Parts: sequence; structure tokens; C-alpha cells
Amino acid sequence: MHVLYYTPRTCALASHIALEEAGVDHELRKIDFGASEQQSDNYLKVNPKARVPALVTPRGVLTETPAILAYIAQINPDAGLAPLDDAFAFAEIQAINSYLCSTLHVAHAHRMRGSRWASEDASFEDMKRNAPRAISACYDLIETTMFRGPWVMGETYTIADPYLFTVAEWIEGDGVDPARIPRIIEHRARMAERPAVRKAIAAERGA
Amino acid sequence: MHVLYYTPRTCALASHIALEEAGVDHELRKIDFGASEQQSDNYLKVNPKARVPALVTPRGVLTETPAILAYIAQINPDAGLAPLDDAFAFAEIQAINSYLCSTLHVAHAHRMRGSRWASEDASFEDMKRNAPRAISACYDLIETTMFRGPWVMGETYTIADPYLFTVAEWIEGDGVDPARIPRIIEHRARMAERPAVRKAIAAERGA
Ligand SMILES: N[C@@H](CCC(=O)N[C@@H](CS)C(=O)NCC(=O)O)C(=O)O
Ligand SMILES: N[C@@H](CCC(=O)N[C@@H](CS)C(=O)NCC(=O)O)C(=O)O
Repeated sequence: MHVLYYTPRTCALASHIALEEAGVDHELRKIDFGASEQQSDNYLKVNPKARVPALVTPRGVLTETPAILAYIAQINPDAGLAPLDDAFAFAEIQAINSYLCSTLHVAHAHRMRGSRWASEDASFEDMKRNAPRAISACYDLIETTMFRGPWVMGETYTIADPYLFTVAEWIEGDGVDPARIPRIIEHRARMAERPAVRKAIAAERGA
Repeated sequence: MHVLYYTPRTCALASHIALEEAGVDHELRKIDFGASEQQSDNYLKVNPKARVPALVTPRGVLTETPAILAYIAQINPDAGLAPLDDAFAFAEIQAINSYLCSTLHVAHAHRMRGSRWASEDASFEDMKRNAPRAISACYDLIETTMFRGPWVMGETYTIADPYLFTVAEWIEGDGVDPARIPRIIEHRARMAERPAVRKAIAAERGA
């Protein structure tokens, strides 16, 4: 059994969708950011980083979206979520997921989490003002140099798809103009039709 | 043949060390940040993100340190740089490497690269002042909750080791007190003795 700690509308959705796509039996545990539950003693025992997602596996806890996604692809090879026998093709997916994690998601975090890196209100405001520019630059790069279509890596659906979809759910809130990234917006719509995606979103909203 | 684009004293060192450890035949190409060469038309053809590292492989270009490190471990399994047949153990390594990439390295980048996320000089100064706090928090977590010793993952040297070593080379410059993280400092000293590490550093400084 696997247990996914998540908060609705966060990056944890990517791991949740991947669990559904791979048909991995799992339970959900919701962490309430409103009550700062990610910083509670109980949750810090699960993930000392005080973030979601965290995936409890039979062997121990895993954190970090790119690591969890690769793990899910590997434990259920039949789901075909990554080219497991092709080091280069696998690395190409990891490269996109690492970019989403270290650059796009981080640019997004500057909208609300400025206190990680600064301490003055004026700096937080400055970061908020610049977030649409920084995030848009990431999307432009993805749209023009990384995204292949119809899925992120081309003809085959992989673990890069739920991750791009998850961050793309934030596009309007992030002040990014959807008109500049038509292929990513189309991908988001295509993703939203998948049963695994519908099921994951319904479970998060209902839970 | 593999070609590594790098700049001395950057995160590219991790990939360089891994190439040496795995015995992967490679050439080095230096990118001169002082001349903004990472933004030159020629380099943007290699890596449109305008960053190092980029690894040119026989199949195409790979970017993102965690992706490159996993690729190097996978193309030379005999080097034993990652547990390739154990999805959980592999994911644990990827989780640490993803944390170094998305959280520690990003905290470090706020010292010098504030213009990625803000536009006021006062914000850059604020980020600079906060960098030692933000980076120290990452190291505290690694020291107390991730690092196993003597190598990052325990008894076996893996692709997490060159990556931790690489960022740990910045500790003093980042204003982190080495005394609070004795195990990481010891690891750094242990790493510095390895022939592959000496060779990579010598090549970067000489090249
Ligand atoms: N690098 C981590 C980042 C995880 C992360 O930052 N999660 C956010 C939600 S999207 C979070 O837990 N934030 C809570 C907080 O900062 O207190 C990953 O990709 O999983
Ligand atoms: N997520 C990337 C980050 C790469 C990165 O930021 N590299 C820095 C050097 S450590 C760089 O190229 N900076 C040049 C610039 O910002 O202009 C990775 O882990 O490879």
C-alpha cells in the first residue's frame, strides 16, 4: 500500500495523477496549509522538509515530485509511463521534470513564498510583480523548445505529462497570458479529459 | 563521445565528476560567464536555457544536473553509481538530487541572480542578506535528515556524492558556518581525495 500526503491545488497533484495512471493502489492524506499542518510535529516525522508531496511506500518515504514520478513509472512498468530501458529517453523526461521542479515551480513560488529568500515586504511585492515575467519565460521555453506534442515527449504519454498539467493549472493565477502558449493550453485541455486526471482532481476536491 | 559544456566553479562540476567516476570518454567545452557566453547564439543552440551544464550525447543534448547524473549512472552500470534495479533506492537518490537542484542550489542562486525573480536593487540586497539563512536551513536538513555517511546514501558511493560535494564547495562563500554541518564538511574532505574529483577539478582549472 502507498499513502500520498497532498494538499489540493499543489504540485502533489502530479504524483496523484501518476498513481492513478499506473494503477498503484493508494490512500490519500490531506495536509491543511491553512492550519500550517505541513509544519506540525506529526507531518515533520513524515517529511522534515515541511512540504507536500510525500509518498509513503512499503520501503519508506519518498519526497520530491521528479523522484516520486520516476518511482511510480518504475514500479509499474506495464503502465508504460517512462522508457525504462532507454537511458537517454529516460533522461530527457527527467530533464523536463527537473526543469519544472527547479525553475518553473520555483518561479511560481516567488508569488507567495518570498519569505523563503527575503525578509522585507517590499521584496515580496517586487517578487510578486516579477512573477508573471519569470513564469512566462519558463512557459515560452517549454512551448518553443521542449514540448513535442501531442504529449510532452511526443506520441507517448509519460510522467512528464501530469507534471506539466499540474503546474499549468496555475497559469491564469500566475498572471501568464494563455494566448502565448497555445500548445501547452491545448495539452492542459487534453489532459483534463483523461479518466485518471478527472479521478485525481475529484478525489482531491472531495476529500 | 560525450561533450560537457561547463563553467568552472558551477554546478556543472557534479556532472564532470560523474563522467570521470563512470569512465565515460568525454571532451570539455568551457563557457565564459564573464563574457556572457551562456547567452550567445551558439550556446543557445546547445541549451536554450542559457545555463550550464549541458551534456552532448550521441543521441542529443541533455540538461539538468539530476537528469545528467542519472543518465551517466545508467549508461555505465558497471561503475555502480546508482542502484539501477531497485526503484525505491534509485528514487531516494533522485529525491536528494532533486532537493539539491530545486531547493539548495536555488537558495544559493539568490545571492547573485536575484534579477531572475525581482527587479529592485533593494530586493537583491535583501536576498543577499537572507541567503546564508536560507542556504544554512537546507544544509541543516541534509546534515540531520538526509546524509547517512560515510557517503550520502550510506556505505555506497552514488551520483548523490558528486552533487553534494559540488554545492558544498560554495559553503564558505555562501556564508554558511561549516561548524554546524560537520558530517557534510567531512564528506567534502573525503570527496576531495578521490582521483576522479581531483582530475575533474584540475581539468576545469587548467582548461
Ligand atoms: N521540490 C519539491 C517542492 C515541494 C513544494 O514546494 N511543495 C509546496 C506545494 S506546491 C509546499 O508544500 N509548500 C508548503 C510551504 O511552503 O509551506 C517537489 O517538487 O516536490
Ligand atoms: N537546474 C539546473 C540549473 C543550472 C544552473 O542554474 N546553472 C548555473 C551555474 S551553477 C548557470 O548556468 N548560471 C548562468 C546564468 O544564470 O546566467 C541544473 O541543475 O542543471
